[in-house]
Amino acid sequence: MTGSCVFAQSGGPTAVINSSAYGVIKTALDAGCITRVYGAANGIIGVLGGKLYDMAAEDPYELSLLAHTPSSELGSCRYKLKPYEQDDRDYIKILDVFKRRDVRYFFYNGGNDSMDTCAKISRYFNSVGYECRVIGIPKTIDNDLCGTDHSPGYGSAAKYIATSVAEVYKDNYVYDTGSVTIVETMGRHAGWLAGSAALAELSGAAPDLIYLPEVAFDMDRFIYDVKSVYNDRQKCLVAVSEGICYSDGSFVSEADVSATDGFKHAQLGGLAAVLSGIVKQRIGIKVRGIELSLLQRCGAHLASKTDVEEAFGAGVFAVERALDGASGKMVSLRRAPGRYGCEFALEPLETAANNEKKVPREWINADGNYVTREFLDYALPLIQGECARVTENGLPRFARLKKVLV
Amino acid sequence: MTGSCVFAQSGGPTAVINSSAYGVIKTALDAGCITRVYGAANGIIGVLGGKLYDMAAEDPYELSLLAHTPSSELGSCRYKLKPYEQDDRDYIKILDVFKRRDVRYFFYNGGNDSMDTCAKISRYFNSVGYECRVIGIPKTIDNDLCGTDHSPGYGSAAKYIATSVAEVYKDNYVYDTGSVTIVETMGRHAGWLAGSAALAELSGAAPDLIYLPEVAFDMDRFIYDVKSVYNDRQKCLVAVSEGICYSDGSFVSEADVSATDGFKHAQLGGLAAVLSGIVKQRIGIKVRGIELSLLQRCGAHLASKTDVEEAFGAGVFAVERALDGASGKMVSLRRAPGRYGCEFALEPLETAANNEKKVPREWINADGNYVTREFLDYALPLIQGECARVTENGLPRFARLKKVLV
Repeated sequence: MTGSCVFAQSGGPTAVINSSAYGVIKTALDAGCITRVYGAANGIIGVLGGKLYDMAAEDPYELSLLAHTPSSELGSCRYKLKPYEQDDRDYIKILDVFKRRDVRYFFYNGGNDSMDTCAKISRYFNSVGYECRVIGIPKTIDNDLCGTDHSPGYGSAAKYIATSVAEVYKDNYVYDTGSVTIVETMGRHAGWLAGSAALAELSGAAPDLIYLPEVAFDMDRFIYDVKSVYNDRQKCLVAVSEGICYSDGSFVSEADVSATDGFKHAQLGGLAAVLSGIVKQRIGIKVRGIELSLLQRCGAHLASKTDVEEAFGAGVFAVERALDGASGKMVSLRRAPGRYGCEFALEPLETAANNEKKVPREWINADGNYVTREFLDYALPLIQGECARVTENGLPRFARLKKVLV
Repeated sequence: MTGSCVFAQSGGPTAVINSSAYGVIKTALDAGCITRVYGAANGIIGVLGGKLYDMAAEDPYELSLLAHTPSSELGSCRYKLKPYEQDDRDYIKILDVFKRRDVRYFFYNGGNDSMDTCAKISRYFNSVGYECRVIGIPKTIDNDLCGTDHSPGYGSAAKYIATSVAEVYKDNYVYDTGSVTIVETMGRHAGWLAGSAALAELSGAAPDLIYLPEVAFDMDRFIYDVKSVYNDRQKCLVAVSEGICYSDGSFVSEADVSATDGFKHAQLGGLAAVLSGIVKQRIGIKVRGIELSLLQRCGAHLASKTDVEEAFGAGVFAVERALDGASGKMVSLRRAPGRYGCEFALEPLETAANNEKKVPREWINADGNYVTREFLDYALPLIQGECARVTENGLPRFARLKKVLV
């Protein structure tokens, strides 16, 4: 089908989401029957406002640098469309823009909320008989998307976390005095990121304890664990997911444990700071909390080559399958059996939309304070490979797009 | 002079202090008149306790990996020797160990406290007529050592900070909503690290405001600065040194500003968290604090090649000059005029001992909220060059020493 295409980015960024952008844009620019390639500013918000960039106006070298540029270069959003049966005003606007620009291909790169957006738009277009092929491209550092073995973005974040934890481990053994260090990763509902800290054991620098949101957190048990490790070796390195919660579902980072600990959580710092304060008070030892914060999702200088290539491939595959006639699907990454290999396939958008893939309980040890060999076997292939760093003046050379509005 | 040598590491680690270790150990092992090469565990503490490793027992390939291994591989300490005129017990122990092992060369790698230790030992040996050549090798991420243009360790920390700030900048522009981000660097008394955040402007990703300990901090002025930038572009990226203090000398990170802000600092998180809380309360906008913490001093994966090579060279130079007869000196790095080049020289240990080199006031702008072109010209050459990353399984391959005790 001949017509133009719109590509947009949505949700939290990753180190490699722009690599998917490059895969889509490059393939679409090269496709004979795609007449114009538009990038929407800030996801679906740019579509709604008709704020579209002409991707053909960009220098090809600058576009190629997207593969090494963190963040969402076109801008992102966290905008949820209402079901069109309830309120179709947004859909009418989107349809209007698409008709005006003869958009027949729509590629949306995001997480489970974004797949929900994609699915709704796809169904709406069907309902009004507007022919447009809609394909979702997965991304999330959290790796919690259903319908795909893993999500582009996860491997690079995992590599950043494992490398940083390995380096912090080395730092922790500098002095012969006791110390506890608590490293906080992202992962609000799933422990894929926290678990990746265990990969540092391949550098001979494993954390001692890891806590994931999949297992209810018990403060007394945590204190017991830390104390046991510390008594054994005068050091303790802990990785913890920001999303750990008590058995009642309340987040540890937000709970007021002053009743039990005499320790009022202030609205300062994150979970690492909260846990550090409690360990300091209850065990009376030197503790340091390190929150990896945004660094873990924008650390493109340490991106996994495997991840960068898969993210690019997912973008290429999306365009190729749309040209073949596919629509209403999400690109899925499948792990070939045996030696690691990744194949692309399509899954219904609804498989991913609004679902969350957790770390299987059996990939976490019985005590709920570390991951198993199965977890390591799953995650290790995803962090392989070093990208050639593109630098200028010793600093990252990011893509510089002109962003010409149409 | 024929005899054995002792090498030891002291003070906080850097990404490249082990590169200096490699320079010393390799050169000493190759030197005909150095009979044994000992590495002391945990700095002067290992010397005092006679805990010495035989460096000749190490595999040469593993030793070479020290150039890419963060932290102080032999262990470090923060131990201050009393003046021997007041209390010579430690000195008698050191002399006893040195005599027993026929130690005639002593290399101590550290910051200003360590140069003080070195100077005292050197003077004591002179006073008792024990012939031993004592050379200090500079290191510190803080770059506050006097008697040297810059210190090994600073360039890599600066590169880590500038790269991370550039990546965080990209992340900050993902959403079209307003946000303020405050990145906290180390640097208790000098702003060299905070200032290095400005290098991110060469990635097109400069922070908006930088606060250094050299200028008295004014909270109202800070709030005004942030508000001005934010009103202009709905974003504000701030870099701040952990050591900023009010005009009365009290650290902002420790001050209780509840009287003026209704905001009581809890013992949670660091300065970034404290300032974030205040900005949130006084301006009412979304703020995120990021503390670079240990990551900035152990991030060997992002080490500056220039820094790694200079650290190695400083170790080599120390041994060569000691073999020539030098003693009671610190290795000094000198900047050749014109195009950047580094030459080594010797300075009296006393030049560095217990002094602190601050950022010149004229390298900070009049408003005290950014650095000048002179600062950038000074720091930029030090972050140049990418090291070939030595990895295994996608993770850093650190040196694995046997550490055979003698």
